[in-house]
Amino acid sequence: MQVDVIPTVNETRADELNQKTVIVIDVLRATSTIVTALQHGCPAVVPVETVQQAKQIQQPEDLLGGERYCKKIAGFHLGNSPSEYTPPGIAGRRVVLTTTNGTRAIQKAQRAGCLLIGSLLNAEACARAAFSVKRDVVVVCSGTQDEFCLEDGLCAGLLLRELSRLDGQPLPTNDLGLAMMLAWDTAKDRLEETLLSCASGKRLTKLGHRDDVVYCAQTNRFALVPVWKEQSLVRF
Amino acid sequence: MQVDVIPTVNETRADELNQKTVIVIDVLRATSTIVTALQHGCPAVVPVETVQQAKQIQQPEDLLGGERYCKKIAGFHLGNSPSEYTPPGIAGRRVVLTTTNGTRAIQKAQRAGCLLIGSLLNAEACARAAFSVKRDVVVVCSGTQDEFCLEDGLCAGLLLRELSRLDGQPLPTNDLGLAMMLAWDTAKDRLEETLLSCASGKRLTKLGHRDDVVYCAQTNRFALVPVWKEQSLVRF
Repeated sequence: MQVDVIPTVNETRADELNQKTVIVIDVLRATSTIVTALQHGCPAVVPVETVQQAKQIQQPEDLLGGERYCKKIAGFHLGNSPSEYTPPGIAGRRVVLTTTNGTRAIQKAQRAGCLLIGSLLNAEACARAAFSVKRDVVVVCSGTQDEFCLEDGLCAGLLLRELSRLDGQPLPTNDLGLAMMLAWDTAKDRLEETLLSCASGKRLTKLGHRDDVVYCAQTNRFALVPVWKEQSLVRF
Repeated sequence: MQVDVIPTVNETRADELNQKTVIVIDVLRATSTIVTALQHGCPAVVPVETVQQAKQIQQPEDLLGGERYCKKIAGFHLGNSPSEYTPPGIAGRRVVLTTTNGTRAIQKAQRAGCLLIGSLLNAEACARAAFSVKRDVVVVCSGTQDEFCLEDGLCAGLLLRELSRLDGQPLPTNDLGLAMMLAWDTAKDRLEETLLSCASGKRLTKLGHRDDVVYCAQTNRFALVPVWKEQSLVRF
């Protein structure tokens, strides 16, 4: 099982994802939010690229969620903070979600043989699901505006360590995968501090979302894995 | 002092390097070879992009060096193995060098306020030189064919740790810089093994250059720093 890591959405070539399992990561905050929503009873999240698409797709019972520049979109029910995706509001309601980087990465990975959503919150479960599918894996770090993000890289490192443990042998991976496993080994015991010190963590803290960074820095809190099925993300 | 790390030559934007100190890294093998050549009495290395340019620039006393696909170029005196850049052959002879990734990165960084050459072999000296220049720093990992290379990333991590030590405080850096410092912390005590396991290390080993990988994995062996001056690399 080859497991490669891609540093940003833009370096993802859609035609290379065919036949593979793709894990999309946007720890701060899109994929952490999607995991949280499904965990709390949301039946499906529909990721779309634009605000217009979100409004077109919306059914009467749906909630609209998302952000631009880390802020809630005018007229939407929810922003991109996982703290908003909790009961009772979220239970039983489908969410149409658009964010700057994460939902774009998911759209780009649609052609994958199997598309899973990863975050620190569900990393172990996500690795188990990917392992069970028995295909080569591509881990796509969403990044921010074409720049590599530390939090996504560290989550990739954790996923690779988990996959390696499940496989019982060193994992064939690309150099970025090797680097992320090494970085994970150093950071794992001070994850909250590390996430607060990276670019997204600092930006979110400045905007009053420090609690979100702390929340998203938790590992393996949930055993749930969102999977792409009929244009939506549902439980694996 | 802001110190950012760029993952590959292609992601280097020449116009962002003005006024800055740029450190180009191609551990396997171009920058390790350049450091080794100057250490052994070569007065200057002229990096060029193409084989044709190398032949045009060549003066009667010059040596031509370089590689394509890790192999010596037909008609050239030297390949790209640092073991060839040793006395007595190299002393007093200028070298015109062309390699697939490293010399391209150097060409692209020509407009920098100050352009230095880094490798594991001279990392501490290189960090000292960069620190003394008192400009913001951009560390350019050459990579291989647009792909991030672990050995360059780890060298960047070491440079950042050294710069941070010299500055006496945590270094403002981008997320890739943070990740490379974390990866360096894990890998530093098993560097030879790590370099032998990355893509370039495995490829070079397969081609019979295992000794080069082991040689290039040595840290701080030389106190010399190549610097760009009048279209050549000379001692800082």
